[in-house]
Amino acid sequence: MSLTGDKAATNRALVTLSDIQDAHERIKPFVHRTPLLTSGTLDALATRAVGASHIRVRLAFKSEHLQRVGAFKMRGATNAVRTHLAGAGASGTLWAVTHSSGNHAAAVASAARAVGARAAVVMPRTAPPIKKAAVADYGARIVDCEPTQAAREAAADRLIQELQAQGHVVKFVHPYDDELVIAGQGTLGLEMLEQAVTLGARGDDEPVLDMVVAPVGGGGMLSGVSAAVKGVDPRILVIGAEPEMADDAARSLESGVLQPAVTPPRTICDGLLTALSPLTLAHLQAHVGDVLTASEGEILAATRLVWERMKQLIEPSAAVGLAVVLNSPRFAQHVRRVAELRGDGAVEVRVGVVWTGGNVELASVVEAMNN
Amino acid sequence: MSLTGDKAATNRALVTLSDIQDAHERIKPFVHRTPLLTSGTLDALATRAVGASHIRVRLAFKSEHLQRVGAFKMRGATNAVRTHLAGAGASGTLWAVTHSSGNHAAAVASAARAVGARAAVVMPRTAPPIKKAAVADYGARIVDCEPTQAAREAAADRLIQELQAQGHVVKFVHPYDDELVIAGQGTLGLEMLEQAVTLGARGDDEPVLDMVVAPVGGGGMLSGVSAAVKGVDPRILVIGAEPEMADDAARSLESGVLQPAVTPPRTICDGLLTALSPLTLAHLQAHVGDVLTASEGEILAATRLVWERMKQLIEPSAAVGLAVVLNSPRFAQHVRRVAELRGDGAVEVRVGVVWTGGNVELASVVEAMNN
Repeated sequence: MSLTGDKAATNRALVTLSDIQDAHERIKPFVHRTPLLTSGTLDALATRAVGASHIRVRLAFKSEHLQRVGAFKMRGATNAVRTHLAGAGASGTLWAVTHSSGNHAAAVASAARAVGARAAVVMPRTAPPIKKAAVADYGARIVDCEPTQAAREAAADRLIQELQAQGHVVKFVHPYDDELVIAGQGTLGLEMLEQAVTLGARGDDEPVLDMVVAPVGGGGMLSGVSAAVKGVDPRILVIGAEPEMADDAARSLESGVLQPAVTPPRTICDGLLTALSPLTLAHLQAHVGDVLTASEGEILAATRLVWERMKQLIEPSAAVGLAVVLNSPRFAQHVRRVAELRGDGAVEVRVGVVWTGGNVELASVVEAMNN
Repeated sequence: MSLTGDKAATNRALVTLSDIQDAHERIKPFVHRTPLLTSGTLDALATRAVGASHIRVRLAFKSEHLQRVGAFKMRGATNAVRTHLAGAGASGTLWAVTHSSGNHAAAVASAARAVGARAAVVMPRTAPPIKKAAVADYGARIVDCEPTQAAREAAADRLIQELQAQGHVVKFVHPYDDELVIAGQGTLGLEMLEQAVTLGARGDDEPVLDMVVAPVGGGGMLSGVSAAVKGVDPRILVIGAEPEMADDAARSLESGVLQPAVTPPRTICDGLLTALSPLTLAHLQAHVGDVLTASEGEILAATRLVWERMKQLIEPSAAVGLAVVLNSPRFAQHVRRVAELRGDGAVEVRVGVVWTGGNVELASVVEAMNN
């Protein structure tokens, strides 16, 4: 990992393309190469949203709702747990400990079980039942805590001390503030660029995708994906997407100062509640062109579009990228700028959009859609 | 088309493999080759349901919820409309007329628009709004009627006379009692067998799939699929699946006498309300080994499993096959019999399951799931 420039408010090194390629080799046999899906209907809507007659938008959705445990989190957790196991040798049972509101917890539990290690997860008592059940199904120990960042961290610290006192090898796997996790999540960016060739041939002056849009919560995935994408082709514009009601990443990037998570949470996107860390902010500063927001109504409408038109059950957190594509005036400006760089005449702008997961508490989302 | 044996209560010829192959050549450019999806989780559940330690069940789902208009109906409608258009020549505007509770209507409307023809659809006033909206979106004329078979047919007759009086070329495209429609639906069976090779190599004495399970309403799809499958390999056992609350096809096949549709409808499977016709009954008698039923609770649970574990938004009517696989004791007996024929030792039984469509009225299905 190389050292970063002076903008980053961290002295930790940024994750590099080479770290992500290593992670990909390590985890490839244990995670799905999820499909890159397309839809003529959504292309037409995205094209209309830009509203310039010479620009055609084509979308390609990296479908991590079809990933193991139903979310991209399996990539980072697998990379971390397998790396730690290789390092632990025969010195005792490896315990992977984490705190998470859901998908990351299930991923760590599943990745640990796959290698014969144990997992213990601190979960807020308000976490969706479907996500708690998934974690328990993977054989992990669950420790409840209050739904605040401070309570999570305190409970995790106590848990680690307790397990260490019992003589176990304990590794904390943070949901995003962890280089191994960031590198693991970045592997979906590598795959997306490889798979994008199926969209058809392009000229030498055109990247395989013009833009990549990915949701941002704690920023681990966006850090890894942006490092991967910019590492492969710096011409690709990477955009973060987050709920208006949890816009701390947009404000952090704009101000250059870490903003705390918005509390109490008032968004349906339970996967995007957490704030950036110094490490993930540094990645975004290095690689991400803009972070755009979408309203709750736009996010629910985008979720519904994907359900109804593509029959893919993504969770609302996963639909924030599409919500930005279809609604953000600033996104449309970025598309027009990309098209301008390509010169006059008809231009096809290709946008890779990350769908993060598909673990939906159906009844509550449907209720929100109908309100 | 060849003449059938003396069992059939119709003097119309059965659709043959060669008719279906012709239909496939005709419609291939205009319909999706939908994927054949698999799930280790569902394989494990199906294996457990059979409950024999030497038998492993592998399922492969033909995913017609990803078909154009969200249902297999696009295949039959496209075959019928394109054949009629070729026959109509330049003698006037072609109007395709039909009556349907939903997916077939959208399919005829879409197929007609694709060739520059017009469509007019008689729909029961109780049809789900999402399905009416889809039909209207494809530019078809909608004529409301009471939700009975007699009212549908009377309204369609009046409509046909009216359009003919205006000098149009009018072709009625019945949702299932139509050889061109049956042949079109059968193309999904051909594709399923071609795609099943991706499940891995098999011995010379083993068919590429051991069994095929498909839902049955009016029986057009089951007629076509069974004719295709048995035509390619007569060793494959074809099973129909229908709701217990609309079990007219099971009783028709058992008694050899056409049973009327169950009224009033009391199943969530709005795609499976209609009764067989003499023509479809004749196909089932020739090709289908058994018709099994599933309860409303089993159908909803199967739907939910597919949503939660595979993230595929299928409609309840589409989940009846899986509901039978996971719950019917008679299905388990069929699997054991298939395994016995293969001899002693460990046996893998491969079952192709047809998912018919994905046009869901979400709120009502989620409400039913939670009751």
